[in-house]
Amino acid sequence: MSELSGKARDLDVADELGKVRAQFVLDDVVYLDGNSLGALPAHVPGRVEDIVRRQWGALRIRSWDESGWWSAPERIGDRIAPLVGAAAGQIVVGDSTSVNVFKAVVAAVRMARLEDTGRDEVVVDATTFPTDGYIAESAARLTGCTLRPVTPAEVPGVLGPRTAAVLLNHVDYRTGRLHDLPSLTAAIHEAGAYAVWDLCHSAGALPVGLDEYGVDLAVGCTYKYLNGGPGSPAYLYVRRELQDRFDSPLPGWNSHAEPFGMRTDYEPAPGAARGRVGTPDILSMLALEAALEVWDGVPIEAVRAKSLALTDFFLECVAAYVPEGRVESVTPVAHEERGSQIALRCADSGDVMERLIGRGVVGDFRRPDVLRFGFTPLYVGFADVERAARVLAEVLVP
Amino acid sequence: MSELSGKARDLDVADELGKVRAQFVLDDVVYLDGNSLGALPAHVPGRVEDIVRRQWGALRIRSWDESGWWSAPERIGDRIAPLVGAAAGQIVVGDSTSVNVFKAVVAAVRMARLEDTGRDEVVVDATTFPTDGYIAESAARLTGCTLRPVTPAEVPGVLGPRTAAVLLNHVDYRTGRLHDLPSLTAAIHEAGAYAVWDLCHSAGALPVGLDEYGVDLAVGCTYKYLNGGPGSPAYLYVRRELQDRFDSPLPGWNSHAEPFGMRTDYEPAPGAARGRVGTPDILSMLALEAALEVWDGVPIEAVRAKSLALTDFFLECVAAYVPEGRVESVTPVAHEERGSQIALRCADSGDVMERLIGRGVVGDFRRPDVLRFGFTPLYVGFADVERAARVLAEVLVP
Repeated sequence: MSELSGKARDLDVADELGKVRAQFVLDDVVYLDGNSLGALPAHVPGRVEDIVRRQWGALRIRSWDESGWWSAPERIGDRIAPLVGAAAGQIVVGDSTSVNVFKAVVAAVRMARLEDTGRDEVVVDATTFPTDGYIAESAARLTGCTLRPVTPAEVPGVLGPRTAAVLLNHVDYRTGRLHDLPSLTAAIHEAGAYAVWDLCHSAGALPVGLDEYGVDLAVGCTYKYLNGGPGSPAYLYVRRELQDRFDSPLPGWNSHAEPFGMRTDYEPAPGAARGRVGTPDILSMLALEAALEVWDGVPIEAVRAKSLALTDFFLECVAAYVPEGRVESVTPVAHEERGSQIALRCADSGDVMERLIGRGVVGDFRRPDVLRFGFTPLYVGFADVERAARVLAEVLVP
Repeated sequence: MSELSGKARDLDVADELGKVRAQFVLDDVVYLDGNSLGALPAHVPGRVEDIVRRQWGALRIRSWDESGWWSAPERIGDRIAPLVGAAAGQIVVGDSTSVNVFKAVVAAVRMARLEDTGRDEVVVDATTFPTDGYIAESAARLTGCTLRPVTPAEVPGVLGPRTAAVLLNHVDYRTGRLHDLPSLTAAIHEAGAYAVWDLCHSAGALPVGLDEYGVDLAVGCTYKYLNGGPGSPAYLYVRRELQDRFDSPLPGWNSHAEPFGMRTDYEPAPGAARGRVGTPDILSMLALEAALEVWDGVPIEAVRAKSLALTDFFLECVAAYVPEGRVESVTPVAHEERGSQIALRCADSGDVMERLIGRGVVGDFRRPDVLRFGFTPLYVGFADVERAARVLAEVLVP
C-alpha cells in the first residue's frame, strides 16, 4: 500500500460523516459528479412508490390535503433553510433555477425602485453559469434596465446610485471559486442595491449564512449537493423583512392570498408562498423531500470541514501522482476561496475525461478545457479521492 | 333494474373505449374529478421505479443521454401533439401552465409589435381560471400594455388596431362552456393580433385543431385529461411559422442553440426547444411520458363522441332522478358549446359535494355554488354516470 492510500484509509476511519455514505446507492465507480447530479439516497425509491401508488393512485385528489401536497413548497423550503443559514418561513420550493432567477431579479429591481426610481442597472457575474446572464438580461430588458456584466472582483467598483440589483453566483460552476458573499453583499447594500445570490454550487456543500449576512434574495437548485433527483425543483429565498415588498413577475394562482377563492383580483399571499407560481410538480418535489432526510443530524459545518479535507487531499494526490505541468488547477488554493470541487485544466481534457469515465472515475468536462471533479462530502470518501487521482495519472500517461 | 341502469349497461357494452378503463387504477369510487387530477395509469408505478432506481440510481449523469432525459421535453411534446391537432416539432413540455402562459403572452405581444409597434392591449377572458388573468396582467405590465378583461363573447367587439394578444380558455373551468376556437382565432387574426389558447380543460377530452385553425400559441396542463400525475409539467405550442419570432421572456440555458457551449451571448435554439427554460424535472416528466401510452390507438374523435354521450346521459339521469328545480346546470346544452364536464348549481353545494364524496361519488366544489363533475372518457363508464346521478338525488333529499 502506498503512503497516500494508507493516509486515505486513516482519514476514512476518522471521518465522522463516513457512516452517511451507506444511505446512498453507490457502486464501484468513484462518483465525482455529484455537483451535476447527486447520487440516489437508498430510501427514495420506496417513498416515490408510495407517492405514486397510494397518494396519487388510491387517494387521488384527496392527497392535496391528506398527503400534504398543497403545503409541500413551503414545508420543503423549511427543510432546506437550515442548510443555507435561513430561519423558517423564507424559502419556497418550485420551478427551475432559471425561473427563480427571473422572479428574484425582477423583484429586486422593483424593490430598489420603491426607494429610488432612478435605479436602472442590473449587475451580473459575467463569468458565471450562462443562464444567470441570459435571464438577468431578460429581467433587465423587461424592467427597462441596463445589464452590466462584470467579474465578481469588479463588482464593488461598478456599484453606484444607478445600481438596482446584483446577481452573483456563490461558487463558480467551472473554476470552483467561492466568492465572498458577506463582503460583496455588504458592498451592494452600501450602494443601496439588492443582492441576489445563486447558491447552486454551494448549498449543501458549505455554510451560506443567508440570514447572518443579510442576503436579500437567493435561488438554488436541489439536484447537486442536495441529491433531489434529476431536475428536482429549485428554491427561492426572500428575506423576511422584504417579503411584503416582493412583487413577483409570475403571480400565478398558487401565490394568491386565497388561492381557492378564484378571485379575479390578485392579492399576493403573505410570506414565502408569495414566491409560488403554478401547481407544484408533486412527484419531483416529494422525491426531493425524501432525499433531504439524509441531512438529519448532519451539521453543515462538518460537511464543509470534510469538503475542504477532500479537496486538499485530492490536490495532494494529484501533485504526487501526476507529472508536474501536465494539469493545472484553476480552483483557488485558499480555503476561503474554494467551493467543493477541483477544476483541472489540461490540453486534451475532453478525451481525458472520457478515459477517466471508462476507468470508473466519473467527473465531467466543461468547455473549453476543464476537468471538473465535485466532492460530495456525504458520500465521497478519501479512498475514492486517492483512487481518482491515481487513475487520472494513469490515463494522462497512456 | 331501473330503465336508466339498463340503458347504462347497454351503453357500456357498446362502448368502444370501454376496454381502456382496465389500464387505470380505479376502485369502487365513481371518480368524476379527472378534470382536476387524472387517475393513475396502472403501468406508471413500474416505469417510475425504473426511472428512479436504474436511470437515476445506477446510470446517474449518463442518463441525460442514455435514458433520453435531455430530449424529453420535445419528445413528449410530440406525443401530445396529435391529441391537440398539431404536427410534430411545435410543442415542448416543461414548467407550469402559469409559467407557459407568461412565455406565450409576452412572446405574442412581441410578435405583434414586430409588425406594428403601436399595439398595446392584451385582451383576456375575465371569466376564466384566475391564474390566466393574473399572469396576463403581469405580462401586460412588463411589456407596457393595458389589460382588457372581457368575456369571450365580448372579444370580437373589443379587438382593434391596438390589440396585441388575446388569451382565452378553450373550456371554462367552472361552467364547462366550450368556446369557439376557430371563429375567435379568425377574428383575432383579422384584427392583426395573436391568439393564445389555454387548453387545460380541453386537451385529451375533445379535438382542438391547433394547426387546422391557425392558433398562434397555446398552453395546457397535463394532469387532467392527460393523466400525467399531480403537478406534471405543462406544455407550450408555438406555431411553426412563428417559431423564429418567438422571443422568450425566460431565455434559460435549455433554450440556447448550443446549451453546452456555455456561451455568454444568448442565441435561441430553433424549433420548439426555444420554449424551454431551465433543467427539466425528469421524474414528473417521464411519469407523464409513461402515462401518455394509454392513448396508443385511441382516436380523439372517439373520445369526444363518448364524452358527449356521457354528459348527455348524466343530464338525462339527473333530470330523471333529481326533483325539478333542486339543481340547475350551468353547462351549455348544445354539444358545440360543451366541454367534458357538467357543472350543477345548487344552494348548498359545498355540503352536497361533501355528502357525495362520503357516498363514493367524487366530483369537486367550485365557489361560490357549483358542483363540478368531470367525465374522462378513457375510464368513466355509463354505469358510473347513472350511479353518480342516483346518489346525487339521494343526498339532495336527505
